[in-house]
Amino acid sequence: MPVVTGPLVLGVDSGGSGLRVALADAAVPGRTETLTARVPVRTGPDGIDAGHMRELLLPMARSLLERSGHDGRDTVSAVVIGAAGMATLGDGLRAELPRALGDALGARTIGLAADAVTAYAGALGQAPGAVVAAGTGMIALGTDLTAWRRADGWGHLLGDCGSGAWIGRAGLEAALRAHDGRRGGSQPLLERMTAVLGPAQEVPALLYPRTDRPAVLAAFAPEVAACAGADPVAAGILARAAEGIAESAAAVCPPAGAAPEGCRVSLTGGLLKMGDPLLVPLRAELTRLVPHAVEAPAGGDPLAGSLLLAGALATDTLRLPTHPTMLHVCDASGRNIRTVHDG
Amino acid sequence: MPVVTGPLVLGVDSGGSGLRVALADAAVPGRTETLTARVPVRTGPDGIDAGHMRELLLPMARSLLERSGHDGRDTVSAVVIGAAGMATLGDGLRAELPRALGDALGARTIGLAADAVTAYAGALGQAPGAVVAAGTGMIALGTDLTAWRRADGWGHLLGDCGSGAWIGRAGLEAALRAHDGRRGGSQPLLERMTAVLGPAQEVPALLYPRTDRPAVLAAFAPEVAACAGADPVAAGILARAAEGIAESAAAVCPPAGAAPEGCRVSLTGGLLKMGDPLLVPLRAELTRLVPHAVEAPAGGDPLAGSLLLAGALATDTLRLPTHPTMLHVCDASGRNIRTVHDG
Repeated sequence: MPVVTGPLVLGVDSGGSGLRVALADAAVPGRTETLTARVPVRTGPDGIDAGHMRELLLPMARSLLERSGHDGRDTVSAVVIGAAGMATLGDGLRAELPRALGDALGARTIGLAADAVTAYAGALGQAPGAVVAAGTGMIALGTDLTAWRRADGWGHLLGDCGSGAWIGRAGLEAALRAHDGRRGGSQPLLERMTAVLGPAQEVPALLYPRTDRPAVLAAFAPEVAACAGADPVAAGILARAAEGIAESAAAVCPPAGAAPEGCRVSLTGGLLKMGDPLLVPLRAELTRLVPHAVEAPAGGDPLAGSLLLAGALATDTLRLPTHPTMLHVCDASGRNIRTVHDG
Repeated sequence: MPVVTGPLVLGVDSGGSGLRVALADAAVPGRTETLTARVPVRTGPDGIDAGHMRELLLPMARSLLERSGHDGRDTVSAVVIGAAGMATLGDGLRAELPRALGDALGARTIGLAADAVTAYAGALGQAPGAVVAAGTGMIALGTDLTAWRRADGWGHLLGDCGSGAWIGRAGLEAALRAHDGRRGGSQPLLERMTAVLGPAQEVPALLYPRTDRPAVLAAFAPEVAACAGADPVAAGILARAAEGIAESAAAVCPPAGAAPEGCRVSLTGGLLKMGDPLLVPLRAELTRLVPHAVEAPAGGDPLAGSLLLAGALATDTLRLPTHPTMLHVCDASGRNIRTVHDG
């Protein structure tokens, strides 16, 4: 049985693929137990469903406490929940969860964070800098530790410039341009589209009725990367994607001079698995648009970021700025503990 | 009461805003009666609903016959139906309507056409050339009278480059770039977006849950045109839209040399109401990409095109190419009358 040496903290990462919960001893780095529920928390007309989150989360938290040898008297000092959609769909969570977590787990401090914030904390900890999270969508978040700056993350129709959905969409357009004999077409991408989706005339009926259109588009992005070595059209798409991502990073980086060693920029998310076809032009664009950027490898994932933030709350060492929707920090009665409004 | 001097023909235009039906005397140009139903024909999982089309169309056809003084013995020689989605969603119509129209109206020849084909016939009659139809979407159709060539029309995610949805989407992206402080942003477009849609953070929730997203995007296109005089970002969006439209026209124009007087190109559709902010760069791009293009004003609308095609079928003077899905011509038993396959 572990000896309790510091405050217990709970970190949560809630997204489209489900819920991950981790318990840690804030004083002992690395002593962490994690549980995963492959059920995503429901989103209804009023936003993320607080009742569903509670139903999934509390049994997992109790189970983690038991598994790690803590009895009923051990309570959790701080809980941080990072959730996709927290900024725009998190009103219900902010209203209901603090009291529920206080009642059930004895939590004294609760943080409710946008997933971009936990991604930031996971990647860069509590240091100033900028984090790009690029997968099916794309968002950049930066801070000088006085306020958050956010760029893009507007979804596949309004932005997410350079994301997987953006690259896949551009690849399919280039394939159809080749099919039509229009300028800007790519015969290799047309061949890949036909191989993976079928003949051109069937592609609209495969895509438009789907409710997960961004994911359908993003699924074609690896084909664009695979063609980029030999096909200038595919390479051009990745060059423009790199530009879109770098433009977002540039918009959120603290200015040159804020830190003598430059602005730490961390690139995170599944899109980076594409490797060199994207990363080579992305690093070149970053150097061009943000000369003071210094690439920093991500220290951990968003769940690690939730735990790190919970540890900071438990030990009153939070340096990242709070914000009404991006990082809401309160006690179990729901009273704000501190809030810094950004621009 | 009019004296019947030639074969009676019926033209139909079916689209998102409803059904328009016109009866004409093929031998007397201009003697036309029109009825409009503001109910669009339903589209179900099996495509355009042939039963619903019949229910709407036959009473309108009978009413037109009565109103124009024709009694029960007068039958319609030819019917042409132009419908949005006919090429990809028209199997039911092609299977069921010829017999229904033969039984109910005595029709001997039936043409089932894509709306782009009736737009072509309305604009250029039976002459070779190219027609661009640009509204919420965008498609270009051309013919040398041996085959049809089609470009774009792939919808708002895969193409429709230069359409209303394309322009509106690009305008909203530029507005959000300004909001984020990203490169390529437009402050005037941000102000217009805020005025017509609300604050940036509310725009995704206004757009993504809608099933008519292309129309929501296209509704912002006039704002882009209104800003283009003073805002280089808005002007750049219209310049790229003009390029997209001209690229499609270039792909479908019969080659130089096919006609000594050049290729007639007709620009049709609601997008052209935008006027000079779009038309000036569009004409410049057309001249650059298709030097042998000669702009021809549209002679008539898609309903006029349906009537013109019906007249050609009734008098056996069809010169435009038939095609299995774009212009299917058959007798009342459904037997093909002639089909030219294009590439």
